[in-house]
Amino acid sequence: MSEVFAVRRGRLRDRCSAAGTDAALVSLPANVRYLAGGAPPGAVLLLGVADQRDVLLCPRTSTGDPADGRPDEQLRLSVLPTTTGDPAVAAADLLDPATARTLAVEEHHLTVARHRAVRSVAPRLRLADLGRSVEQQRRVKDEEEISQLRIAAEISDQALGELLESILVGRTERHLALELERRLVDHGADGPAFRTSVATGPNSGRAGHRPSDRRVEEGDFLSVRLGANYHGYRCEIGRTFVIGSSPADWQIDLYDLVFAAQRAGREALTPGTAYRDVDRAARRPLESAGYGEGLAARTGHGVGLEIDEDPQLAPTAMGKLDACVPVTVEPGVHLPGRGGVRIDDTLVVRPEADGGPELLTITTKELLAL
Amino acid sequence: MSEVFAVRRGRLRDRCSAAGTDAALVSLPANVRYLAGGAPPGAVLLLGVADQRDVLLCPRTSTGDPADGRPDEQLRLSVLPTTTGDPAVAAADLLDPATARTLAVEEHHLTVARHRAVRSVAPRLRLADLGRSVEQQRRVKDEEEISQLRIAAEISDQALGELLESILVGRTERHLALELERRLVDHGADGPAFRTSVATGPNSGRAGHRPSDRRVEEGDFLSVRLGANYHGYRCEIGRTFVIGSSPADWQIDLYDLVFAAQRAGREALTPGTAYRDVDRAARRPLESAGYGEGLAARTGHGVGLEIDEDPQLAPTAMGKLDACVPVTVEPGVHLPGRGGVRIDDTLVVRPEADGGPELLTITTKELLAL
Repeated sequence: MSEVFAVRRGRLRDRCSAAGTDAALVSLPANVRYLAGGAPPGAVLLLGVADQRDVLLCPRTSTGDPADGRPDEQLRLSVLPTTTGDPAVAAADLLDPATARTLAVEEHHLTVARHRAVRSVAPRLRLADLGRSVEQQRRVKDEEEISQLRIAAEISDQALGELLESILVGRTERHLALELERRLVDHGADGPAFRTSVATGPNSGRAGHRPSDRRVEEGDFLSVRLGANYHGYRCEIGRTFVIGSSPADWQIDLYDLVFAAQRAGREALTPGTAYRDVDRAARRPLESAGYGEGLAARTGHGVGLEIDEDPQLAPTAMGKLDACVPVTVEPGVHLPGRGGVRIDDTLVVRPEADGGPELLTITTKELLAL
Repeated sequence: MSEVFAVRRGRLRDRCSAAGTDAALVSLPANVRYLAGGAPPGAVLLLGVADQRDVLLCPRTSTGDPADGRPDEQLRLSVLPTTTGDPAVAAADLLDPATARTLAVEEHHLTVARHRAVRSVAPRLRLADLGRSVEQQRRVKDEEEISQLRIAAEISDQALGELLESILVGRTERHLALELERRLVDHGADGPAFRTSVATGPNSGRAGHRPSDRRVEEGDFLSVRLGANYHGYRCEIGRTFVIGSSPADWQIDLYDLVFAAQRAGREALTPGTAYRDVDRAARRPLESAGYGEGLAARTGHGVGLEIDEDPQLAPTAMGKLDACVPVTVEPGVHLPGRGGVRIDDTLVVRPEADGGPELLTITTKELLAL
């Protein structure tokens, strides 16, 4: 496994030397984790391009647990606790002005103040922009990463499955969300991948809904969205159910529509398909049915070390799917005052030859009446 | 209440006009909330200095819930949904180049990339640094804010009190932490103020400890740290207990020492006392006892809309306490391999005439054997 991190850093090193930068400073936490393995909060990675020497700089935590200082043979990089101040500044300070003239930093993560502090300790250093190079490298996952996502999805399915067997009527959105998060951990998650959303009745179908004190009632739509964080990898599942013996006609019709849209999106997940075409496949059925107005800006997104990664499945997104890219497909319709339906899966793009898209979240998508 | 936000913005406006800036862009979420009330994630506040016109710019959420677009009479500012892109950029775009020549931004929060994007839409605009002006304004709380903190502390005491009545032996740190967070919400918290820490046996006394699968055992020290988020205001309480009928002598001695240090810190909380003197009061007893080495970089910090605010109670901190500043006092000692003790309270600095420091977290600090 430690091999993996060295290889990833090697690929970034090649990119940097091609771009003519002598060193790179990686500060975005998920990027640091991707390149150096688990790192304490606030740690930054200094990637030596010319000298091939990589250093993980860890902040001295204010909790009195000093970052562990031993050079990490496994990770093939030296781990340096920075007793005071900003590890990013300490990193720039490490560079030898004779050999390192250009340092690429993550301008989309580093604040203006930190950027200035880095410059001030190394005034002769030319600061360049690393851009989203590491994010781009993270987009296509290796099988090791996908197996972590597969476990995260299994855990999420288990937690959701258990909830469906419990009594729901009368309980609040807030408590159902907390119970789901507890079950995620029961089944081995490091924690929830994101804030669990439970939406009932008029709230149902709103993906961004924050659990309230509203209680589940007979006849409600109940939409749930959760995901496990397993070893840093985060997946997402969303389902909508009906509470009570028999759904109303409008509920059945709306569910069938969203289900068809979500299936169309899933079926569009083949290598080489443009992101926007996947979005269109999931979006068009909803637009044709007259729900174009309130639709979300996108119908899916990549997942991995962050719950919201490239690619974005949206009308204006540029680029094409590759194999081994995990994405969500999550169209939904919300009718103000009445509620709505969302169906959300995490899948991995696979070539037809390998059986097409691999569905990670396998909980049934038929309309269950609970 | 809405009055309050207008008054806060007025104070910031005065600061800005004194500094000669024509407008200020507030992007740090806690600062936006402080000045504009509850705002959707990613919202930014444009403070008009010359024209006195304030605008809250909300991102179009990717979830399809458009930010609510009506001008907010109550808040006395106009709320503007920004359909696409970065609200900070949209804000700069709103400014009239004729009247607004200088815009102060939060350089400690805005990334280099966003800063460049802001500049590019308003090239003639001079960008200045607002610095931590809003954070400084937030340091001293009004009675409304303190009453929110008081409720947050009550909720935290209740959640902790219930845990003490339950069976602990055999349960994992992870589950105890989750149960505490559930109880916080049961008692009306919007959520935990920070990730709850439960540390048993050799882990005990480490403030930064992340709950593991270790189970509570007879004879363990059990240290717990939690806090409620109530209407955005966050407090903190930490206690250490002994599991089993009778604590060992070393446990009693260590507990008495940390208790004395924490009391000394609490008693130093008077208006006009230097931050570093409060830290020294809590730190010296531990140093005298020979535990100077592994001590945390600080023994307390401010709390409010963020769990970690100014002031810092640390050896190198500059500044003096004011009345109505809520802070934590949280010294601790951790003996590698054996465990340790932390005691953590949230208090509000009050003049002697008003009875001295107001203790918000009132759970007993005598050494309980559970």
